[in-house]
Amino acid sequence: MADSLDTHQAQGSARPADDPEQAPDFSGWTCPAPLRDNQRVVMGHGGGGVLSAELVEHLFAPAFGSEVLAELGDSATVTLGGARLAFSTDSFVVRPLFFPGGSIGDLAVNGTVNDLAMVGARPAYLSCGFILEEGVELSVVGRVAEALGAAAKEAGVTVATGDTKVVDAGHGDGIFINTAGIGLIPEGVDIRPQRAAPGDVVIASGAIGVHGVAIMSVREGLEFGVEIESDTAALSGLVESMLGATRDLHVLRDPTRGGVATTLNEIASASGVGIRVNERNLPVPDAVANACAFLGLDPLYVANEGKLIAFVPPEHADAVLAAMRAHPHGKEAVAIGTCTTEHPGMVVADTGLGGSRVVDVPLGEQLPRIC
Amino acid sequence: MADSLDTHQAQGSARPADDPEQAPDFSGWTCPAPLRDNQRVVMGHGGGGVLSAELVEHLFAPAFGSEVLAELGDSATVTLGGARLAFSTDSFVVRPLFFPGGSIGDLAVNGTVNDLAMVGARPAYLSCGFILEEGVELSVVGRVAEALGAAAKEAGVTVATGDTKVVDAGHGDGIFINTAGIGLIPEGVDIRPQRAAPGDVVIASGAIGVHGVAIMSVREGLEFGVEIESDTAALSGLVESMLGATRDLHVLRDPTRGGVATTLNEIASASGVGIRVNERNLPVPDAVANACAFLGLDPLYVANEGKLIAFVPPEHADAVLAAMRAHPHGKEAVAIGTCTTEHPGMVVADTGLGGSRVVDVPLGEQLPRIC
Repeated sequence: MADSLDTHQAQGSARPADDPEQAPDFSGWTCPAPLRDNQRVVMGHGGGGVLSAELVEHLFAPAFGSEVLAELGDSATVTLGGARLAFSTDSFVVRPLFFPGGSIGDLAVNGTVNDLAMVGARPAYLSCGFILEEGVELSVVGRVAEALGAAAKEAGVTVATGDTKVVDAGHGDGIFINTAGIGLIPEGVDIRPQRAAPGDVVIASGAIGVHGVAIMSVREGLEFGVEIESDTAALSGLVESMLGATRDLHVLRDPTRGGVATTLNEIASASGVGIRVNERNLPVPDAVANACAFLGLDPLYVANEGKLIAFVPPEHADAVLAAMRAHPHGKEAVAIGTCTTEHPGMVVADTGLGGSRVVDVPLGEQLPRIC
Repeated sequence: MADSLDTHQAQGSARPADDPEQAPDFSGWTCPAPLRDNQRVVMGHGGGGVLSAELVEHLFAPAFGSEVLAELGDSATVTLGGARLAFSTDSFVVRPLFFPGGSIGDLAVNGTVNDLAMVGARPAYLSCGFILEEGVELSVVGRVAEALGAAAKEAGVTVATGDTKVVDAGHGDGIFINTAGIGLIPEGVDIRPQRAAPGDVVIASGAIGVHGVAIMSVREGLEFGVEIESDTAALSGLVESMLGATRDLHVLRDPTRGGVATTLNEIASASGVGIRVNERNLPVPDAVANACAFLGLDPLYVANEGKLIAFVPPEHADAVLAAMRAHPHGKEAVAIGTCTTEHPGMVVADTGLGGSRVVDVPLGEQLPRIC
């Protein structure tokens, strides 16, 4: 067959070829967007910062025409057959596939489970799509699948449906995974980025910056004295405990790509409140602080995969904090700031030295492909 | 920053490196499977044939421990908040991104919508995960997103949630898309591959082999006299018409990767019936037949993206055929065979010449990356 194809290829027509850059002529296509000057995708478009947001706001949302998508939360909230459901998806392209404290299989479960939990849903079912690169060892695929299965069991979710595609060697990177998840939102729960209100107490569930530094250390072959393990974990149990203290949680968010700084900015912007953070209260472990100092990173911008930020009405803050501290994933929960009517849409940090600084949204990302 | 990292890399520890092949030592890992002799992923693992099935059965299913997944239908059927839902996912890695009759954006919607429709569900919401390769033109991403949005509108589904990741140039292939979908299954509908029964009439909704040949022609620069356009289409409307004729449809399946032959074999195997197909009744357009003869392909194994195969109790066959023919996507619907108690689990074709032949499952695939 190869022979006859080769013969015929010599007579090949001028049809659109395989290279996307040689696809039908789109030179007249104008992006309904600022999207800056670049005409091509850069790594920062996947970084969870300003570039990512612009891509969604100016390219995907208009193309899809979706009001639901335009809300930009971690999960969509949809109603189907009378049930109020959370629905979310994430793709995982982390390098390396295995790192201290976890693997792409753990992230693929916990990332989507946490997105569902961040609207208060009880995660129930996951879908799972593998894109494998030709030539990757089956033993590696097997270990990743086992890690994924174990993480699903730990999180109490069922992998209900799946798909596998294979791409030619040199057109993938070992294993990419997409998961989507659905979960049921309990009655009376209304958690979304628009609900932060002046006076709300901002709570972090534990140490920040750990996942990003763990990935960075292993990828670059760095050692920081102690091994830093990823914090990847399913937070649905923690959220259930918090909902036991009050159903009136205003906002929950897991600060993954772009870190706590990006999360706080998105919420300040969505709710139209100002957020004031006390830097001295930020739970940054010494090892993370040292690694960040060494690498020139700010822990506020480093990704987390097993932590959440909660916005809680002041009258419930103590009860929620107590509930969190009683849960294994919230033992080190701490109030890190408050919402204010001042500087709406902005995040300001009181520094340890008595001054204050604006905490901005990153343009792209400090660390590519950390999830 | 790059400098200090380089300096430090020289002292790099022996931690697991970036290449998945250098991941933690899995040499002791044994696949709970035959999985043949190959120790690595080959293109055929994504082909929808025997290799794909083995990967699911022996690697993914045991790792995930999922009974739901083990049913191996196009969609999982799950119950959440009292609602009976279909839940399905597919990744799309088709090359080229644009082809006669459609694009990866169309496939990403129609592929998942059709999986939902094949259990009788009314598709409602899609998730959408893009994996972009650094350097791909934003105009190409924009056109794909617009095609995806238009296909969603046509199919009557909402893109409810999304995600974008970017991988380094040389580690992707322009654009990969994953979609997952949820839909509501109407009461009294129970459509699944296990329900084919002796006497059932096997119906094809129209011409077969079109999508695979359209992709092959454009990829290889071949011309077959007439341009063959992909049949990509959402079949949920057609299924709704069929359910209007009877709720008692036994099995529906869209014969994508692996074609009609693989679909029939999977159903014969799942239901324990024999299937007898009359080759003269197979709706193979001349252009497809000619292209297949030229390329040495069998149209029965070529992928379709806008066709379905239905197994219908004989007493409802005429009504279902009439309902199909009244719908734009079923105008050329035709009975192609019947289920029998003979040769259970096997598919046999009566040839045009009065003989018969066994229609086997392909090992891998004839045409890689057609969806």
